[in-house]
Amino acid sequence: KMLRRVLCTVLFVGALPSLAEASQGHISVVLLGATGDLAKKYLWQGLFQLYMDQVSSGHSFTFHGAALTPLEPGQRLMFDVLKKLACPPDESPDRCAVLKDQFLKLSQYHQLKTAENYTVLNSEIETLLRQEGLKEAGRIFYFSVPPFAYTEIARHINSSCRPPPGAWLRVVLEKPFGHDLASAQQLAAELTSFFREEEMYRVDHYLGKQAVAHILPFRDQNRQFLDPIWNRHHVERVEIVLKETVDAKGRTSFYEQYGVIRDVLQNHLTEALMFLTMELPANVSRAEEVLQSKLQAFQSLRGLEKNSAVLGQYQAYASQVQEELQKAQDYISTTPTFAGVLVHSDSLRWEGVPFLLTSGKALDERVGYVRVLFKNRAYCTQRETLRDAGYSQCKAKQIIFYIGHGTLNTPAVLVSRNLFRPVMPEDSWREAVGQSDLHIFGQPLSDYYMYRPVKERDAYSVLISNIYHGRKDFFITTENLLASWGFWTPLLDSIAHQPPRLYPGGAENQHLLDFEMVSGQVAFILAEPVELLNPNRPMPSDYRAVQSKFRQHPLVSAWSEDLISQLASDIEQTASRAVACSGQFHLALSGGSSPVVLFQQLARHHYAFPWKHTHIWLVDERCVPLTDTESNFFSLHSHLLQRVRVPYFNIHPMPVHLNQRLCVEEDRGTELYAKEIMALVANASFDLVLLGVGTDGHTASLFPHSENGLEGAQTVVLTESPVRPHQRMSLSLPLINKARQVFVLVLGRGKHDITALLSRVGHEPRKWPVSGVNPSSGHLVWYVDYEALLG
Amino acid sequence: KMLRRVLCTVLFVGALPSLAEASQGHISVVLLGATGDLAKKYLWQGLFQLYMDQVSSGHSFTFHGAALTPLEPGQRLMFDVLKKLACPPDESPDRCAVLKDQFLKLSQYHQLKTAENYTVLNSEIETLLRQEGLKEAGRIFYFSVPPFAYTEIARHINSSCRPPPGAWLRVVLEKPFGHDLASAQQLAAELTSFFREEEMYRVDHYLGKQAVAHILPFRDQNRQFLDPIWNRHHVERVEIVLKETVDAKGRTSFYEQYGVIRDVLQNHLTEALMFLTMELPANVSRAEEVLQSKLQAFQSLRGLEKNSAVLGQYQAYASQVQEELQKAQDYISTTPTFAGVLVHSDSLRWEGVPFLLTSGKALDERVGYVRVLFKNRAYCTQRETLRDAGYSQCKAKQIIFYIGHGTLNTPAVLVSRNLFRPVMPEDSWREAVGQSDLHIFGQPLSDYYMYRPVKERDAYSVLISNIYHGRKDFFITTENLLASWGFWTPLLDSIAHQPPRLYPGGAENQHLLDFEMVSGQVAFILAEPVELLNPNRPMPSDYRAVQSKFRQHPLVSAWSEDLISQLASDIEQTASRAVACSGQFHLALSGGSSPVVLFQQLARHHYAFPWKHTHIWLVDERCVPLTDTESNFFSLHSHLLQRVRVPYFNIHPMPVHLNQRLCVEEDRGTELYAKEIMALVANASFDLVLLGVGTDGHTASLFPHSENGLEGAQTVVLTESPVRPHQRMSLSLPLINKARQVFVLVLGRGKHDITALLSRVGHEPRKWPVSGVNPSSGHLVWYVDYEALLG
Repeated sequence: KMLRRVLCTVLFVGALPSLAEASQGHISVVLLGATGDLAKKYLWQGLFQLYMDQVSSGHSFTFHGAALTPLEPGQRLMFDVLKKLACPPDESPDRCAVLKDQFLKLSQYHQLKTAENYTVLNSEIETLLRQEGLKEAGRIFYFSVPPFAYTEIARHINSSCRPPPGAWLRVVLEKPFGHDLASAQQLAAELTSFFREEEMYRVDHYLGKQAVAHILPFRDQNRQFLDPIWNRHHVERVEIVLKETVDAKGRTSFYEQYGVIRDVLQNHLTEALMFLTMELPANVSRAEEVLQSKLQAFQSLRGLEKNSAVLGQYQAYASQVQEELQKAQDYISTTPTFAGVLVHSDSLRWEGVPFLLTSGKALDERVGYVRVLFKNRAYCTQRETLRDAGYSQCKAKQIIFYIGHGTLNTPAVLVSRNLFRPVMPEDSWREAVGQSDLHIFGQPLSDYYMYRPVKERDAYSVLISNIYHGRKDFFITTENLLASWGFWTPLLDSIAHQPPRLYPGGAENQHLLDFEMVSGQVAFILAEPVELLNPNRPMPSDYRAVQSKFRQHPLVSAWSEDLISQLASDIEQTASRAVACSGQFHLALSGGSSPVVLFQQLARHHYAFPWKHTHIWLVDERCVPLTDTESNFFSLHSHLLQRVRVPYFNIHPMPVHLNQRLCVEEDRGTELYAKEIMALVANASFDLVLLGVGTDGHTASLFPHSENGLEGAQTVVLTESPVRPHQRMSLSLPLINKARQVFVLVLGRGKHDITALLSRVGHEPRKWPVSGVNPSSGHLVWYVDYEALLG
Repeated sequence: KMLRRVLCTVLFVGALPSLAEASQGHISVVLLGATGDLAKKYLWQGLFQLYMDQVSSGHSFTFHGAALTPLEPGQRLMFDVLKKLACPPDESPDRCAVLKDQFLKLSQYHQLKTAENYTVLNSEIETLLRQEGLKEAGRIFYFSVPPFAYTEIARHINSSCRPPPGAWLRVVLEKPFGHDLASAQQLAAELTSFFREEEMYRVDHYLGKQAVAHILPFRDQNRQFLDPIWNRHHVERVEIVLKETVDAKGRTSFYEQYGVIRDVLQNHLTEALMFLTMELPANVSRAEEVLQSKLQAFQSLRGLEKNSAVLGQYQAYASQVQEELQKAQDYISTTPTFAGVLVHSDSLRWEGVPFLLTSGKALDERVGYVRVLFKNRAYCTQRETLRDAGYSQCKAKQIIFYIGHGTLNTPAVLVSRNLFRPVMPEDSWREAVGQSDLHIFGQPLSDYYMYRPVKERDAYSVLISNIYHGRKDFFITTENLLASWGFWTPLLDSIAHQPPRLYPGGAENQHLLDFEMVSGQVAFILAEPVELLNPNRPMPSDYRAVQSKFRQHPLVSAWSEDLISQLASDIEQTASRAVACSGQFHLALSGGSSPVVLFQQLARHHYAFPWKHTHIWLVDERCVPLTDTESNFFSLHSHLLQRVRVPYFNIHPMPVHLNQRLCVEEDRGTELYAKEIMALVANASFDLVLLGVGTDGHTASLFPHSENGLEGAQTVVLTESPVRPHQRMSLSLPLINKARQVFVLVLGRGKHDITALLSRVGHEPRKWPVSGVNPSSGHLVWYVDYEALLG
């Protein structure tokens, strides 16, 4: 049987067109999943286009379709597809017919299932090359198969199908590339054990969309116009949108695992976002420079929170899932089919500019676009009725990369005429005159310079051509992929069980999916019509009423979000009073994880906070360098100080690092800090000390049975923590008790036991240091969330 | 003669109406300048209104008109005005006629010229009170006189006309209150020597305009709606506009000294700005709280630069000035009659929001408004054609305080319907239905909730009523006035000789006065049609060509603005390269005034600067605390560090202040800094050192014949400056010469001599320390502006 196939191949080869003339060498293209949907719809057509474009390039080609199906039905299935290959409109029918005939002859089907199959494929390629006297240029393996099959196939290719030295290997991978950061890392690690980074071409077919692919070249070629305006001072907002009318019917087995964020936002829309936000490298066609800029741009993205997204699910989805996946009638899916996500970059260039990424199924129209809306920077002194309509500096200014479908039904680049006339490459984009009655993004088409591609090219044709040319900048590198998953995974985790808003689908959605930005977050504008899925979270208002004191001091209790928001307001009020009274506010902050949410709240929502007059002190510090991520100060710096304007002089980290060593008694860091406090804080009474509580009852870095800091005259002390890093510096209990206000923040179920215990015990600081907090002439308030209070 | 007048008064008094019933006491109102324009047009009418409103208040009144004119003609002139007083439409004609008759009887004219005149006035008031058995409540002196007369009058009032203890004195002052900060301070000091702060009521009649007066109450009563949106995240821009159609004809003797900024922006528009930007005090009707908030808001304003304003002058102005002021035909006035000014507040609430203050004469329409335009925060998922027009979250959102005239021709408050329905006090504002076909600010009037005053009141009526009620929040305190002049004076100084753009006036201005914001500055959109006034500044391009080296090193030379801009770009490029290469950029900066402009340039225009990876070092420091305004670090902090995001850990001020003392050898600050450099900067080679040059040839803090720092192994040294503060800390010449790049910046005519000298001398660091700058393996570039180079 083997012999027959080899013979067959050889015979076949005897009739092969144009192989002998190949002076640049031979390229073997292996399409894995040759009879699948993607192959049928796009990939064979793309390979045929490649052949048509490159037949005279000096390379010779063979095309190997492969699948798990045995030879006989597989061959038939594949050639049924190949026979239907279309001739592009810009190709002469005669030439196309000849080339199609050649292409069919150069193509063959293989069953690739076992290790042996791969060995056979490899020797067939070798035999062919030897017999035809061809030098091998390279091999392309296109993985159009489900991701679970990747590792197996990769292992076989690596062990049996590598080309000889001097020829290249390119493996083309289709998404999904994992499900979250961990799975993507695992998949990447596996692939990396078989292929070198430069051998892998991960496809994001959006990078092949002509309008998307032109974002970087556009920015590059129009630097003169964009340099002054491509920044937060000029850009009002950016919308990156992919709306679909279809739903997930028939694909729920895939979709139910992924949802719209993994399916569209993590990859397609994120890539467009990066093209917009990255600093432009000197040379935009050098993949390595582009990658480095892109990775930097990823680093500048502000972390997403639960409320960075609004989520929807079309109503029919649940029953489709129940039917297709044989789920019970009461099965509830929380997979979103619509998402609107607000992304911020904290780079100097983009800080404050909202990037809205939106995608959904079962919407009112099919359309994709990237829209950059500029602020109106002009003031027109003449009154409106006297303004020259043609001279429109007070009209909207925008740049739109129109990906396709929608009103225009073509890829296009649009630039408002009051902005600038863009430089466009004449060989690939031509100016188009729009129908004047057409309105797009609120303006008549005649308000724009509009360009359309000279040739409309399908994304896969573009990408396959780029694989052939080795243009890695059109593909997703491992670093790029992991950066993107690193960005999206926290959001995906936080919304995993969040019920999406249901929407009817199509035009009936009306305003149900409109959303708005509020303080760096997004929310649907319309109130939920019926709370169909929201489990009713009980509000123990009775408890709040019963207990308004804790350990004889005022208690504020609420769900943690409300509690933090109340605490932040109370701190601001304390700050304003202190500044009004003494011109300064001395605030001592604790480390740990609870305050992080508070810091974010303060940085984002408290505009009137008198930061300029606030001094920031540390309640305690770990004996690590300040730049260590374990340092309390480092966390305070990243979450708060980096975002507000506290003068440098008012920031007082604890001197744990002196003379290139950490917390050494002789370096007298504690004395130094005590002196600094004495010099600046009147009477050494902080205006506010914020404390936490550990499960062992510690507070600040004062641990049970500590030798230092629980009593005595020393105001700043070195202590030992039972957990690493062991060495700590801390304010002493006597100093804390001199404060005018002390707030103790206790969050989470994990603190329930210690909270319950503290509610019963008296003043026993040696056992539970926090029980010794009792300001001598100041006020103490407990902020305890319901979880800590009620368990 | 004296006797006759007293008798006359007494006789007159015998017939006075309603004085006897005054249980709250008597109020004497003295109007100085009683026959002047303002008095004729507004003040007498305002006093009559006061009388009508307060006749039953329990107070009795007399009204004393005064001027320099002798009794006989003065009396006649004044009563001619009084006879023409109008009855307001909301008053019954009968009652008004009776009250007008009484008002005339209660009014009398006085010549007030000499000290004796004032004494007589005082004794007349005392006599009247004694004879009628009246308790004195207070005296109001309304200064409707030119400012040069203020001091004299104030002296007389203070010495002769103060009411007895228990009664109050209120002096009402009309602008101008000075011409700039210095003159305003002088005037304020003079007035303060005669009156207590609470006795002075400085009028800004804009505070009496109903729409302006309602800004604070509106913000207060609508806190629930405004709290979340009254900030930089939601407000796109604010326009404060007063356009006039009249020109300055007949008033050029005043106008030529003042111009539009002093006449309108420094007072009226600034007050509106403050009402918008200030943090809302808990109680908006407590003058002291409002004042404190206002002063804070002034502090947050970013300093104005020359390019913060665009200036115009209507074409006929020059000939009007020549005619009215008898100037020669070639007399050129640079007084602006139009100004558009971009103001920024650096408060957390407003940072980045443009406030556009615009006013001008000879424009196309008469109108005044304050317009707050909100960002569009919504994303409407449904396509435009399917959107419900009535449900308009994607329409413009604005709040407008319409001061008057223009399209509406009435004071009004407008709030977009998609924003909120405002809370308005029903007794003073009522909802109005707009003509639906009227468009205002781009939207049909039906898109707004619109409110108009229940009674339209003239600004002076409002203010006179507030003087009577002692409502000081409607007037400008001394602190307020000086804060405003402090803000405007630097701009006024910098534009003093700048030729304004000429405009024809009226509708013919077309787009000539449209302007736009570019990187925190403003510029006219249209290029100057003819550079009529611009003196042609010579561009010594030949010089640039001749000399491209200075002291054998590359020289960059240009006018100082271009030079700074080039230097900033070069620094950014150096930074990016260093970060690309080593992940860090170590930048050592000098003190002095020249770098300040550079710092501003870097902070405002270099978005891609890798601040996150930049370490900031000091080249030299004065031995003063870091928070001293003389400190180099303090200047660096205010102009650069406070505005960009350099991590705290990367900022390295020189340790001049240790153990509560300055630059003491034993505290080993130099060693400490040297160690820090060694620990962080590879090979102690800074990536870039920026130096300046003193007129004595010093650089860093290395002065001629210095004992330290010119040679030897010590890298950081203490030195002595010939000027105060004498003690300095400085990097040494050998350390500077280890840098990879050294840029020397030399600016201004004052540096011409040393520049010329340096171009001739060799390496003589003991005489001219800067001549010893010669990096051993790095590059040195000189940045010298034309003034320093050419003198």
